[in-house]
Amino acid sequence: MTPRVVEATANATLANMGVGFDILGMALAEPFDTVRAERIPEPGVQIAAIKGDEGKLSRDPTRNTAGIAAAYVLRQIGAAEGVSLSLQKGLPLASGLGSSAASAVAAAVAVNALFGEPLSRPDLLAASLEGEAAVSGRHADNVAPALFGGITLVMGLTADAIHALPIPPNLHLALATPAIAVPTAEARAVLPANVSLKAMISQTAHVALLVRALHSGDLALLGAAMEGDGVIEPARAHLMRGLPEVRAAARACGALGTVISGAGPTLCSVCESAAVAERVAVAMRALYAEMGLAASVRVTVPSVGGAAWRVV
Amino acid sequence: MTPRVVEATANATLANMGVGFDILGMALAEPFDTVRAERIPEPGVQIAAIKGDEGKLSRDPTRNTAGIAAAYVLRQIGAAEGVSLSLQKGLPLASGLGSSAASAVAAAVAVNALFGEPLSRPDLLAASLEGEAAVSGRHADNVAPALFGGITLVMGLTADAIHALPIPPNLHLALATPAIAVPTAEARAVLPANVSLKAMISQTAHVALLVRALHSGDLALLGAAMEGDGVIEPARAHLMRGLPEVRAAARACGALGTVISGAGPTLCSVCESAAVAERVAVAMRALYAEMGLAASVRVTVPSVGGAAWRVV
Repeated sequence: MTPRVVEATANATLANMGVGFDILGMALAEPFDTVRAERIPEPGVQIAAIKGDEGKLSRDPTRNTAGIAAAYVLRQIGAAEGVSLSLQKGLPLASGLGSSAASAVAAAVAVNALFGEPLSRPDLLAASLEGEAAVSGRHADNVAPALFGGITLVMGLTADAIHALPIPPNLHLALATPAIAVPTAEARAVLPANVSLKAMISQTAHVALLVRALHSGDLALLGAAMEGDGVIEPARAHLMRGLPEVRAAARACGALGTVISGAGPTLCSVCESAAVAERVAVAMRALYAEMGLAASVRVTVPSVGGAAWRVV
Repeated sequence: MTPRVVEATANATLANMGVGFDILGMALAEPFDTVRAERIPEPGVQIAAIKGDEGKLSRDPTRNTAGIAAAYVLRQIGAAEGVSLSLQKGLPLASGLGSSAASAVAAAVAVNALFGEPLSRPDLLAASLEGEAAVSGRHADNVAPALFGGITLVMGLTADAIHALPIPPNLHLALATPAIAVPTAEARAVLPANVSLKAMISQTAHVALLVRALHSGDLALLGAAMEGDGVIEPARAHLMRGLPEVRAAARACGALGTVISGAGPTLCSVCESAAVAERVAVAMRALYAEMGLAASVRVTVPSVGGAAWRVV
């Protein structure tokens, strides 16, 4: 017997991890989106409710990342029935934490579970990408870690191009999301079309150091490597008010490195303990407050398991 | 008592390892250069003999990579006496195997040993770079692995910027050096000043995969990652006659990947055993012969220990 109602969660993700633009992503234990999926006799996808989005997301299932991913799964499994989705946004929108990816992944996982998991986890990558593509372009740097968990190296858009990287022990993250609007499209538009060979060499060196740091569990090296981005951050820094000051404040509290999460405006600091991360988060919020900016802060850790589901 | 005569060896090195242009290098067990250093009463450096260079290297110690490195060490240690050097070239010149770096490193290590090792191994990096700079520019991607051994990630020109990477078990290399002249200066001149952002992303992704493959010991992944260079190889390929054909022949014999060693013309194939590497080397030589090119081939493994010395 397959269940009638299933609830799936998919987590926030730190795309890029600083220097790893478009290729690296890390799943975070918090925050996460929840999608409740219920089987209904009518074929296709309906969206029954969306909470936590302040009314900003489309209720049209063909224009909603969760709806698109759900429909893709239904088509893949040739379902005769349809699904009704209820989406609880735990992730803030347009914050650089992979909001659209989390909703797409949660919906794909929920619908697949609802029909007895005919598709494997790797099979769900295409459905999740389809949902993500409607909002943010076809990139797997958020989708892959949200779906599989942990830290992923994304070499392409198929499951065999996703490589798991080790999660270093004791890694804690402090996140600060200031009330700044940074549309992903604008954050993409400011990127250079070309980079100097010298910049490419430095970027490859820091990415190599980052992967080495993950394997050796050296958090100080990890923070330094992540901050070694000489291409993307310089192009986007003007969109992230206060970045140098917040970074300095975080470092003064013990942060080992601070980077833009995805396309921003969330900043993420690498810390070696929960206590340090708490101090860093408080200091970041205080600094944004001084600048007259409200900021929500959070302390979290990497998420190991990927998207999860349960019968409700 | 310090010795009167010391002999040091420094090994060939595979700079770049394909996709890791200017940042990665691997020491090879063979071939290697040997420098014999003898204390003499006159201050400064004399070059008594050079063998194996077909008369091509300068005997003027101020214009010879070994002589320059030796003089640098003498200055650093404030030696009252001088040294007489005899250089036995085991490495072919201008072959892309780090010939100038090997001579510089061997000379630095020999002279330091001659005076009781007042300088540490990291201290010898500057002297080696000084020698290398006279010939090939100031790059550590050959010098660092020749000096320290193993596989090195080079983030800069100081010892704290050199990071050791793990050597995967069972890694064997087949080297083929065809009789093609590829001056390092020309191989540098053909490089693009700028690369597309897309190319940079692909390059960083393959470098990340390469480091992951070294850590996981996955030789097939290593070979694929090394071959993922979409920037340097395309610019230089026309200088390496027969590259696609040699690569295909090597792959048909079991090679997991074939790349240009340094600035070429030596090609290096990644293999999982000595037997495969032997087959690959024979096939490479045969293919060059079909093209009317003589080629010297060799099978080797990574060198772990770095430059070595002994009293003679």
